[in-house]
Amino acid sequence: MKELIKLIDAKLDEFIQISYPEEIFKSMKYTLILPGKRLRPVMCLETVRMLGEDINIAIPTACAIEMLHVQSLIHDDLPCMDNDDFRRGEPSNHKVFGEANAVLAGDALLTFAPQLIIEKSTDLPDSTVLKLVHEYTKFAGAYALIAGQVVDIESENGNLVKSPQETLEFIHMNKTAALFRLAIRSGAIIANADEVVLNKLDVFAQKFGLAFQIYDDIMDEISSFEELGKTVGKDKKSGKLTYVSLYGLDEAKQKLRLLIQECYDIVNEYGSTIFEQILDKLKERVLGV
Amino acid sequence: MKELIKLIDAKLDEFIQISYPEEIFKSMKYTLILPGKRLRPVMCLETVRMLGEDINIAIPTACAIEMLHVQSLIHDDLPCMDNDDFRRGEPSNHKVFGEANAVLAGDALLTFAPQLIIEKSTDLPDSTVLKLVHEYTKFAGAYALIAGQVVDIESENGNLVKSPQETLEFIHMNKTAALFRLAIRSGAIIANADEVVLNKLDVFAQKFGLAFQIYDDIMDEISSFEELGKTVGKDKKSGKLTYVSLYGLDEAKQKLRLLIQECYDIVNEYGSTIFEQILDKLKERVLGV
Repeated sequence: MKELIKLIDAKLDEFIQISYPEEIFKSMKYTLILPGKRLRPVMCLETVRMLGEDINIAIPTACAIEMLHVQSLIHDDLPCMDNDDFRRGEPSNHKVFGEANAVLAGDALLTFAPQLIIEKSTDLPDSTVLKLVHEYTKFAGAYALIAGQVVDIESENGNLVKSPQETLEFIHMNKTAALFRLAIRSGAIIANADEVVLNKLDVFAQKFGLAFQIYDDIMDEISSFEELGKTVGKDKKSGKLTYVSLYGLDEAKQKLRLLIQECYDIVNEYGSTIFEQILDKLKERVLGV
Repeated sequence: MKELIKLIDAKLDEFIQISYPEEIFKSMKYTLILPGKRLRPVMCLETVRMLGEDINIAIPTACAIEMLHVQSLIHDDLPCMDNDDFRRGEPSNHKVFGEANAVLAGDALLTFAPQLIIEKSTDLPDSTVLKLVHEYTKFAGAYALIAGQVVDIESENGNLVKSPQETLEFIHMNKTAALFRLAIRSGAIIANADEVVLNKLDVFAQKFGLAFQIYDDIMDEISSFEELGKTVGKDKKSGKLTYVSLYGLDEAKQKLRLLIQECYDIVNEYGSTIFEQILDKLKERVLGV
């Protein structure tokens, strides 16, 4: 796990070279290379390995998915969105580079990511590269990631079109699970998985995504700034719709336990120490087992 | 020309269907379907026609390029950027949908555009579609469009790394010419043009892009809100680096005249009434000939 993270960190650093105009590349790079868990790229690479392929052919795609994730963090932190001054323990992008650069750095990452997939996936056939870019565009946009973010903002303003339960499910599936789905589906596509395997792993990704968001909701309630590197307790303060606010802490923990068990069941079919480690960590920190 | 614009308008309207969450699709669509000159998609389609191919296979790509253009307008108008309240004669996107939605609508358009190219270019081989998406990512990002915007902002803040002449050239080539290059290069790729033709048309696109930006700089000086549908005289007020501010109105006009003549010369080799019409219009309005 640590080695994979080190590899990803090195590649993220390598893939973005500072050139003129420096400000934009520095801004793109700033949030990208802050130490993070790199969960999405790790899961992409581990899917490839688990299915018997060489992870090296998946590195550009894995890094592209982390870039998309970081892009969404930079824009989420903007004053007009979540207005968050800290990210990964450091001042957020717009605090360092200004709002205009933060908007543009996010924009730049959003198209640099598929450019990277296209330019660096030289060992993959055109048809596979095209599939990867297609998956990227599907999950990055208004039918997934952005949809989740929009409904999230609407829910904060108390402006619900669907029931609170359905709304929360929609936010979690789109804002959070989408990127895990993208990571794992991309890994499966690179490893040439058949439809059955792809769909099974997609179910895993959806369940993991929900579990991860419930974990995140619980952590916002029980954790500290030092541990998370970002402002905590904001959800409660803003009256945000979260698993904890809707179902209470106990039921949230119970739901998390169930989802994690379902995730173990799927992963055990394939055998992956890394996926087990990730699941163990979610479980231990919040459920204390 | 009018028929091409009508076709593009109808397709842009068709390609973005309002679904849940409606706010984001409405916001994406709002600026997109405001009547515009549709210069970039028209030039993409006309390149395809000029090189002897059916324009219908190029419609998704042409529309995608207009989406990218509109995306850049939505983000440019944001309070943290140019802070413009009007666009195409109507309130700008963030004035109607709020800043958060305007940021997200721009983000969504940025990845919806290549998604459209991939999903709707069913008559083109994978390798061509991949080339089109690659071109899109190259010109949309930190090495072109965004680079131009960043240097533009830096120049407004009087923060120049290069000489004023080089800086202005860089802004114009990247902020403006990039999208014309993308439009014309994409058309040439769809029509299977060889390298020689592609490069010649690329030179045309670069010259046209510079001509168009000089035209725009002059119009900001001599035109009215009613004619442009956006705030005028802003460049002068903000002390912005423009062709007019750097070289004066007369030299700007002279440079424009020269570039337009060079554009005519290239287009005449191929024969295109539409390109001629576009060049005529630039010339007549500003040079009065």
